[in-house]
Amino acid sequence: MRHINTRRSIRRYTARDIEPKLLNSLLKDAARTQTMGNLQLYSVIVTRTPEGKAALAPAHFNQPMVEQAPVVLTICADFRRTTAWANCREANPGYDNFLSFMNAATDALLYTQTFCNLAEEAGLGLCYLGTTLYQPQPIIKALQLPKLVFPVATLTVGWPAEEPPLTDRLPMESFVHAESYQDPTPKDIDRYYGPKEALPENQEFVRINNKKTLAQIFTDIRYTRKDNELMSRSFLDALRQQGFL
Amino acid sequence: MRHINTRRSIRRYTARDIEPKLLNSLLKDAARTQTMGNLQLYSVIVTRTPEGKAALAPAHFNQPMVEQAPVVLTICADFRRTTAWANCREANPGYDNFLSFMNAATDALLYTQTFCNLAEEAGLGLCYLGTTLYQPQPIIKALQLPKLVFPVATLTVGWPAEEPPLTDRLPMESFVHAESYQDPTPKDIDRYYGPKEALPENQEFVRINNKKTLAQIFTDIRYTRKDNELMSRSFLDALRQQGFL
Repeated sequence: MRHINTRRSIRRYTARDIEPKLLNSLLKDAARTQTMGNLQLYSVIVTRTPEGKAALAPAHFNQPMVEQAPVVLTICADFRRTTAWANCREANPGYDNFLSFMNAATDALLYTQTFCNLAEEAGLGLCYLGTTLYQPQPIIKALQLPKLVFPVATLTVGWPAEEPPLTDRLPMESFVHAESYQDPTPKDIDRYYGPKEALPENQEFVRINNKKTLAQIFTDIRYTRKDNELMSRSFLDALRQQGFL
Repeated sequence: MRHINTRRSIRRYTARDIEPKLLNSLLKDAARTQTMGNLQLYSVIVTRTPEGKAALAPAHFNQPMVEQAPVVLTICADFRRTTAWANCREANPGYDNFLSFMNAATDALLYTQTFCNLAEEAGLGLCYLGTTLYQPQPIIKALQLPKLVFPVATLTVGWPAEEPPLTDRLPMESFVHAESYQDPTPKDIDRYYGPKEALPENQEFVRINNKKTLAQIFTDIRYTRKDNELMSRSFLDALRQQGFL
């Protein structure tokens, strides 16, 4: 995995398509990832048509890569196929509950990340859209997802037409703990976040948004309590609608 | 990623330790994985001591690899560090809600899978313990996880002392859908699951458990409605206890 230390999210793609043979080989190889009981509790919806991408775009705040990328993948937690199997085989499935959602979401996310690593090794560029969790309902509608299927990740994929700078990461000691969790002290916080706060682009970001600190950019603009609480409610509603709660 | 098509879960390890330098380099490189707002909403607890492993074992149904592996990693969704940062910087964090849990769990699981891919490329063997989601409470206690930290994945890691056969996978067309979700028909189910049902070890498994079908092994023994519903309630209780609901 030579790519891992030079990877970056890619939001602009060349006009070149992704050959179905290549895409299928990546989608197939990613399925070697460990999975609960070998059940593969996920599905992938491949969107290639302009109409399909246009239908998904609003759920992703119309970020341009959704319509520009040759391929959009929506990866779903899926207990429906396993449930259908059980129903065809005189078995009584009991997967319409929250734990089963978490099991399937886990399977789907692990699969997603192996796909990402394989695709980046193959030279493709991709952008992971966290917006999938913010607005599952319009995605469910656009892709006609039935009960026990729930979107958990979206990737836009294509051949890179940009090479943005690497993004910053926290020092390892901030997220690795020996034996038990060590709560960070204010001094630790200074040490962990100081380099991030000192980056010229982050200082500029604070200035143009008229904020006092970089943390305020996150709490007041990007990920606010109000939005999080609103989206928590609509996420739980969507879980109910899809039969997982 | 040459390993991907030959990987298998490894449950038995040699006596050789994992050098801290190697482990740290894998833990660090895995952090290049995309993450929400570059916030890295995860933590990893590294358990190396016999006492630490013994404390975790019951939460994983005393599966022997927990105490046998040189290293046990518990990967947690973590909004606590980000919240502590905000609190130190005159910002008002709003991450004690369900969406924030899902965002952090996603970050944690993507990180986990890149770690798996890197570790397997380095020749290590690992086993992913799905039991983490079944019994989060004793893990929270054993690792002293405070509010806004929640365990989502456990890996036992070591140098392989076995080479089990590859496990079966469904055909790709069962989980890849073009443009919208296609509900499987009973004929599709036969085609997708027939090869799995025909495997000698699965037929033997059905026979010795006195069941009629392989699906009944899953619904009646391995993942029952009763267990799933019970564990759903305790998972939601644990989310409340950790401040995410």
